[in-house]
Amino acid sequence: MTLHSSSVPSLGAFLFDYLYKEKNIHHAFGIPGDFALSTFRWLEQSHIELITMTHEPSVGFAADSYARVNGLGLACVTYCVGGLNMINSVACAYAEKSPVIVLSGGPSVNDRRNDPLLHHKVKTFDTQRRIYEEVTCANTVLLDAKTAVSEIMRVVETVQAECRPGYIEIPYDIVDLPVIMPAYIPQVIAPESDVEALNDFIKEVTDTINTAKQPVIIADIELQRHGLTDKVLEIATKFNIPIAATLLSKSIISETHPLYIGVYSGGLSEAATQQYVEESDCVLMLGTFITDVFLGQYTAHLDRKKSIVVTTEKATIGLHAYNNIRFDDFLDSLRNAPICRKEPFINPCPAIDITPLMPAEYDDPINAEDFFKILSLHIGADCTVVCDTGDSLLGAIGLRTSKHKNFLSDAYYLSMGFAVPAAIGALAGNKTGRVFAIVGDGAFQMTGMELSTAVKYKMAPIVLILNNDGYGTQRHIIDGQFNVITMWDYTKVTDVIRSGFSARATTKKQLQDALVKATYSNEIAVIEVVIPRDSCSPSLRKMGEQLGKLRRNEEKHE
Amino acid sequence: MTLHSSSVPSLGAFLFDYLYKEKNIHHAFGIPGDFALSTFRWLEQSHIELITMTHEPSVGFAADSYARVNGLGLACVTYCVGGLNMINSVACAYAEKSPVIVLSGGPSVNDRRNDPLLHHKVKTFDTQRRIYEEVTCANTVLLDAKTAVSEIMRVVETVQAECRPGYIEIPYDIVDLPVIMPAYIPQVIAPESDVEALNDFIKEVTDTINTAKQPVIIADIELQRHGLTDKVLEIATKFNIPIAATLLSKSIISETHPLYIGVYSGGLSEAATQQYVEESDCVLMLGTFITDVFLGQYTAHLDRKKSIVVTTEKATIGLHAYNNIRFDDFLDSLRNAPICRKEPFINPCPAIDITPLMPAEYDDPINAEDFFKILSLHIGADCTVVCDTGDSLLGAIGLRTSKHKNFLSDAYYLSMGFAVPAAIGALAGNKTGRVFAIVGDGAFQMTGMELSTAVKYKMAPIVLILNNDGYGTQRHIIDGQFNVITMWDYTKVTDVIRSGFSARATTKKQLQDALVKATYSNEIAVIEVVIPRDSCSPSLRKMGEQLGKLRRNEEKHE
Repeated sequence: MTLHSSSVPSLGAFLFDYLYKEKNIHHAFGIPGDFALSTFRWLEQSHIELITMTHEPSVGFAADSYARVNGLGLACVTYCVGGLNMINSVACAYAEKSPVIVLSGGPSVNDRRNDPLLHHKVKTFDTQRRIYEEVTCANTVLLDAKTAVSEIMRVVETVQAECRPGYIEIPYDIVDLPVIMPAYIPQVIAPESDVEALNDFIKEVTDTINTAKQPVIIADIELQRHGLTDKVLEIATKFNIPIAATLLSKSIISETHPLYIGVYSGGLSEAATQQYVEESDCVLMLGTFITDVFLGQYTAHLDRKKSIVVTTEKATIGLHAYNNIRFDDFLDSLRNAPICRKEPFINPCPAIDITPLMPAEYDDPINAEDFFKILSLHIGADCTVVCDTGDSLLGAIGLRTSKHKNFLSDAYYLSMGFAVPAAIGALAGNKTGRVFAIVGDGAFQMTGMELSTAVKYKMAPIVLILNNDGYGTQRHIIDGQFNVITMWDYTKVTDVIRSGFSARATTKKQLQDALVKATYSNEIAVIEVVIPRDSCSPSLRKMGEQLGKLRRNEEKHE
Repeated sequence: MTLHSSSVPSLGAFLFDYLYKEKNIHHAFGIPGDFALSTFRWLEQSHIELITMTHEPSVGFAADSYARVNGLGLACVTYCVGGLNMINSVACAYAEKSPVIVLSGGPSVNDRRNDPLLHHKVKTFDTQRRIYEEVTCANTVLLDAKTAVSEIMRVVETVQAECRPGYIEIPYDIVDLPVIMPAYIPQVIAPESDVEALNDFIKEVTDTINTAKQPVIIADIELQRHGLTDKVLEIATKFNIPIAATLLSKSIISETHPLYIGVYSGGLSEAATQQYVEESDCVLMLGTFITDVFLGQYTAHLDRKKSIVVTTEKATIGLHAYNNIRFDDFLDSLRNAPICRKEPFINPCPAIDITPLMPAEYDDPINAEDFFKILSLHIGADCTVVCDTGDSLLGAIGLRTSKHKNFLSDAYYLSMGFAVPAAIGALAGNKTGRVFAIVGDGAFQMTGMELSTAVKYKMAPIVLILNNDGYGTQRHIIDGQFNVITMWDYTKVTDVIRSGFSARATTKKQLQDALVKATYSNEIAVIEVVIPRDSCSPSLRKMGEQLGKLRRNEEKHE
């Protein structure tokens, strides 16, 4: 068999060449299966480096994380048993606007005739596509080589334009066929702004900012996803307006920038950040997802009348909205608007003073707050921090990283098990600097063994397992035996994967020593950080209390 | 807060009482999350024993396996991050007709107003229900306490009638409300048979069997799921007709029964079984899924004109079909039909002679075939065998267990990672006897750490990891670097979970010693069985060759 027998490329050759050359995808994450093997063969022969993992939920998280770092991610799996096992991770990417392309193997056109019972099939041959329709912005099944190229381009272009996942199902027999280049290349063109509306809106925003005493920008995740962060940073710098991030957009600008005032998340924020934002008479929410997490589970005190919200989907000021305004047009116009530069401001929440550990504290147990303080002493300028759900995330609110785009977490969708596989994705996408994964014990038990993949590809993440003996976040909401998990010996994980070093830290000095060893070595590090069972960050305690009130239905029953 | 403040039960109290008392569900499998915590609290207070696991894909497999053993399974998860992470396992249960009830927490009715961005939400609040619609036979979101009871009953009754999974989403605030018992209890009544058609069909079947020289019954999975196995066994015994099982229904009757001739799966079968079935002039396929696995990837030689197929969905003889015939009515009528008892037959494939290991073989490496021969020496009468996909399954074709309903595998859907979590489900459903999980190295890396749950609930599965250094099945189809996995030290897994004993067997004697130790102890055993890289069962080799021809598209390209 000669796969390159003709000058017309096969579908497989075209697909991966297109993704590599046109779309800058240099890594793919996947697990093969029989319906996908012919596609995997083409992938292996392409310029794209294939990273095969152990379990599909991890494949999705790794591709998502790579997309956050690189701009576009690629996950390759087999039909149903692979693709359906990744739905949750792709749902996470959808919810948080991460552009991941899912390639799935599939039965051949001929296989699908008369609807026989072929292994991996659920209800119909269309089941997987229908399910993916619920978690993607575009989808296709390449049943015809003649239209395959334009279908691929349609999905990939839509994924890029909307920053949401897309789904391409590839019947195993079509991937070797020669492709036909379409006469018409599909393009996704965003509609133009309503110029009159834009001008009116800009005028109103300009007046509001000019009369405001304490304007503030909340720079959220859409800016990063759509490549608009630099425009906002320019606006902020030009007019001297401070910037807050959200949990979802944390590190959108360097956290040591003089205008940066920290992460806003309602009552979960650091006190000075919350106070500055909530006392502002003009809150510019740019690209903001107004989620319950952003609102600190409804502990936020933001006055709608003093808010301006502009995203890819809407433009509002106070209680009224303007239609048909493109986000990028708005930012371009705002940059050139006649806004007076604000007075120099004194940053109420500058980058945290880093105090080295004192000998008197050496033997202290490590509470959740101390953990992040000690960690911050060891995060270098080029490091990336990936946080899982729970105190791994909420405790990190006060952590300041020094580069931008070096903090990753699923801070809205909040699926446990994100951090370790996402660290693999980040390591692939960002070859310089160490990657720290911070993960609770419960979340580590979900996907932590994915460290196996780091061994295979000679990656060296530093994994910090915050072991507080069970589902700590949930204990604050409703407690029961269901929050108890088996106590693993996490230091033995490196024995199983036969690589890396491990340590257990129960005192601050032990944590410091382990971090020093980890950062000076170039191998995988697994550090179990023993956190007292009742210790948690103030943010987590507040969130737990708020959610507890809701989930225990106390208002109704007491 | 008093949860039992009134004589009218709350929804939570009613639900679990109903499932325990009316539906014989004594165990539930789950992982809590904030939207589900109020439901978990009711579950923990009920008579049902809750088994909390580490990762949702495992929860689904455990509940599925419990359903196969017990008749009905229960999985409890949280909204989206839990439920969507279990879709693949529920799809497996759908494909293989395993009646699993999925309970998911969800946002409150009030939360859903104005469609805000609440954590865990994907596209809309209905996303998870819509996705579950693709893998269940009935679904509901309990938005109204007044209709909740009848909705629950409708879903559960449908699950039982169709032997497919069902989905019930429980907003967190509704579970504490008092229920209203409906005046009308929904019942799922199957339509009655067309009596004239049934009589004609029975007459034709009777004539065919009476004139046949070598009739054979293929007793497949629907018989077991719908509780019809005993009727078929009675028919077979009364008329002296031999019975073959399929990979999916293996152990549907005791594999030591004198009429039992082994597993039929086309060219993957043992030679004598294949020959007997394919030479038959009347093959009665009862409850059979005519899948590509059943057909041995199209290596089967079955003459449609000599086949009678009766399932819950159809009734055909030769090339024509009868409509509106209930499967149970057919079996009842067949039992009383004027069929002449067949001559005594000599079983061409009796239970395998068990030959003890000879000292001369002690130091031999363990090839895939030998493994199953040695294993069969150690499987007691009350043991259960759970097989994962690959040679763990195909190699087990020749393995004879002695009890019925003690072989479990996902032999049609073929999702890797089934065996270890399914062993947990089987141990919960069947307290007597040891449970052996046979799993490949690739599949173990997916879900094997679920052994953690066995520690928590003091279960003692014996896990046999067939380590052939990568994705062995796929190497036979298309090979590449993508079939390589990290070589774990599987014997260290027991160190991580801090329980059980482990062994590595590279020779036959070491395997025997490890099996003796495992069966005489009462703790978790993890035995790594080192299989030479190029060794596989004849069935796997045949299947790999067949699939390889298809997947490499050789017909078209060579």
